[in-house]
Amino acid sequence: MNYMETLGQKAKEAKRIIASAGILLKDNALQAISDALVANVQRILDANAIDMQNAQANNMTPAMQDRLKLDEKRISAIANAVLKVKALPDPIGEEIGGWLRPNGLRIRQVRVPIGVIGIIFESRPNVTVDAAVLCLKAGNAVILRGGKEAINSNTALVKVMQEALQSVGLPAEIVQLVEKTDRETAGDMMRLNGYLDVLIPRGGAGLIQAVVKQATVPVIETGAGNCHVFVDASAKLDMAVNIADNAKTQRPSVCNAIETLLVHQDIAETFIPAIKARFDEHQVIIHGDETVKKILGDCVIPVTEEDYFKEYGNYEIAIHVVDSVESAVDHIVKYSTHHSECIVTESMENAEYFMNHIDSAAVYVNASTRFTDGEEFGFGAEIGISTQKLHARGPMGLIALTSMQYQITGTGQIR
Amino acid sequence: MNYMETLGQKAKEAKRIIASAGILLKDNALQAISDALVANVQRILDANAIDMQNAQANNMTPAMQDRLKLDEKRISAIANAVLKVKALPDPIGEEIGGWLRPNGLRIRQVRVPIGVIGIIFESRPNVTVDAAVLCLKAGNAVILRGGKEAINSNTALVKVMQEALQSVGLPAEIVQLVEKTDRETAGDMMRLNGYLDVLIPRGGAGLIQAVVKQATVPVIETGAGNCHVFVDASAKLDMAVNIADNAKTQRPSVCNAIETLLVHQDIAETFIPAIKARFDEHQVIIHGDETVKKILGDCVIPVTEEDYFKEYGNYEIAIHVVDSVESAVDHIVKYSTHHSECIVTESMENAEYFMNHIDSAAVYVNASTRFTDGEEFGFGAEIGISTQKLHARGPMGLIALTSMQYQITGTGQIR
Repeated sequence: MNYMETLGQKAKEAKRIIASAGILLKDNALQAISDALVANVQRILDANAIDMQNAQANNMTPAMQDRLKLDEKRISAIANAVLKVKALPDPIGEEIGGWLRPNGLRIRQVRVPIGVIGIIFESRPNVTVDAAVLCLKAGNAVILRGGKEAINSNTALVKVMQEALQSVGLPAEIVQLVEKTDRETAGDMMRLNGYLDVLIPRGGAGLIQAVVKQATVPVIETGAGNCHVFVDASAKLDMAVNIADNAKTQRPSVCNAIETLLVHQDIAETFIPAIKARFDEHQVIIHGDETVKKILGDCVIPVTEEDYFKEYGNYEIAIHVVDSVESAVDHIVKYSTHHSECIVTESMENAEYFMNHIDSAAVYVNASTRFTDGEEFGFGAEIGISTQKLHARGPMGLIALTSMQYQITGTGQIR
Repeated sequence: MNYMETLGQKAKEAKRIIASAGILLKDNALQAISDALVANVQRILDANAIDMQNAQANNMTPAMQDRLKLDEKRISAIANAVLKVKALPDPIGEEIGGWLRPNGLRIRQVRVPIGVIGIIFESRPNVTVDAAVLCLKAGNAVILRGGKEAINSNTALVKVMQEALQSVGLPAEIVQLVEKTDRETAGDMMRLNGYLDVLIPRGGAGLIQAVVKQATVPVIETGAGNCHVFVDASAKLDMAVNIADNAKTQRPSVCNAIETLLVHQDIAETFIPAIKARFDEHQVIIHGDETVKKILGDCVIPVTEEDYFKEYGNYEIAIHVVDSVESAVDHIVKYSTHHSECIVTESMENAEYFMNHIDSAAVYVNASTRFTDGEEFGFGAEIGISTQKLHARGPMGLIALTSMQYQITGTGQIR
């Protein structure tokens, strides 16, 4: 047994206990974890200080250092987030469906935990706790593999969680950390068939693609967002400006921000100058087609096909003028990562067409794409946003961390 | 673009059309396919005759030849199965959930097609049609990759289906066959990310493991079944004998047949001779532990740990005596492939314990494991039985061939 198989074996044993733990015990564990995080602030900060020293020594960028850094306030926020998960209803045991067969068999479809969940993530140590407690609430054991730059912080956080689990009589191995952060161990984790029921990568496109390519265990692909707003001819001008601006500039680094704005030709001459004026408040760089350039002049960088595929992730956007809702849909289907798209329109017919022909996780009529988020959807918490079509699509809350089982009762039926 | 990418690109274009085709058009297509199969019997039989000649020349086993062979009756059965799929309700467009957010956003969760589905399967040509029409009914394009020994039959069947699609105004590329049956092309198919939304292998353990190991597209693992019946102390003797016998001998080659029979020690001395008498009607070979050997004598082959992991797939079984429902569950959790397990008991408490601690797709109280089947569950048809926990678990009907999309309507909401 290699290192990862040893962790896998321990998780497999622990999952049986957490799977059949009731909601009272699980919630006690969550309370204990939250309390322990607060009680052990200094211990966690001491560990984080080592990571921060190493980060400085390795010339980590200030933005990355900020992601890595913990302080009393951030730990308190993490502890509070645990209590929010505690407050969510138990997803396990819910009867999703049930029917009676002509032969008298009663079939019930019951929500059960997935089993052992692996999470591979990058530097933010808050993910360590967030992901662990969501898995735990849904009755799963979890194996966490964070970045090596956060190893001291993560080790401290996991130790604190494990002590809390033990304090309520649960095995520490419900939450385990991969302490070997080399590539080989990461590869072993991606091929941990027979132990890991699913692997969820959380991080940049590079990490996600590496996991998708190498993993032999089932993976839930998260993340990449090349999102669009289409401003239809009948759109209310103010609403269109507000939505396009919000979707681009409110937080341009996140996956539900838009990268390309599509504009119907009939509204282009009024809408494009109006959105330009609003974008100017954030010095948004505009890549535009011929029509956009004609309207806005030389400030426009000619857009290339490559731009349409790009996730800028900052104050930069492509603008393209189209002749119909059909053309807008064709463009989106071709270039989008199937995350979130929006139409701003007053036409019921075009709204229907857009919703029924766009093949993305979330499709909006007259609302910002920025709402594609577990909290905004009302899930209370989020483990990531799935951009694949199997199992879970869009924001993933607790339900995405569950499976189901058929429970069938009979009176001696045979075939 | 390599060969598979060309197929993938065509499927990607065709999927948009079938995804938004309504139920009337889809059902017309299914009717046309059924009619065309009947009308083209001779053409299909001629193609099958070539495969059968090659099979004989290559000394294919009689059992394999029987799987490959088509005759008028079998083609008529295939055409009838298409009509049964036609009769099923449309899964697409169903509103699975919906709620209103405090900010006035209305979120609806709507069932949509998956997109492009790949099916890799072995020699049975009936799978070609069964799988294609299920995918079509759920609004998906499909790429079929059958075994090279059935290539002539499959080519004819797919041509007939494509002509039927075109006759109702749909593109032929909704159903495509991989005509290059070499290994390299199969590998390309498993890595057809960006085109294939899911790949479903249907066949033996070797095929399934190859796909799980090599694929970078999402896979639904199907198949392997190491299933169990546990006869509890309180079981009704007749019921226990009927269920254990049915689960083992009614069709031992299929995945929902049992491989190990667990018996509570308190009932062992009456139950084991009774089931032995029944098993003798099929000359079932018994691998038993010490207690079984003591009861039945020398006809029992000593059971090994390897036996407990084995899927015999024929008239052969392992019997193991346990001291409690807890021990039975421990045994099953350790050796099972998490397919189907059954307890025969009159104890409500033990039935509850068994259902809540067994981590398999289907868990039965007082009914044969042989019911784990799409038809028996009332799904009308089945694309396979999933033994993984993501997306679909247990028998997969039309619903397993769908995804969902969030459709959100607002009145200008921004964050």
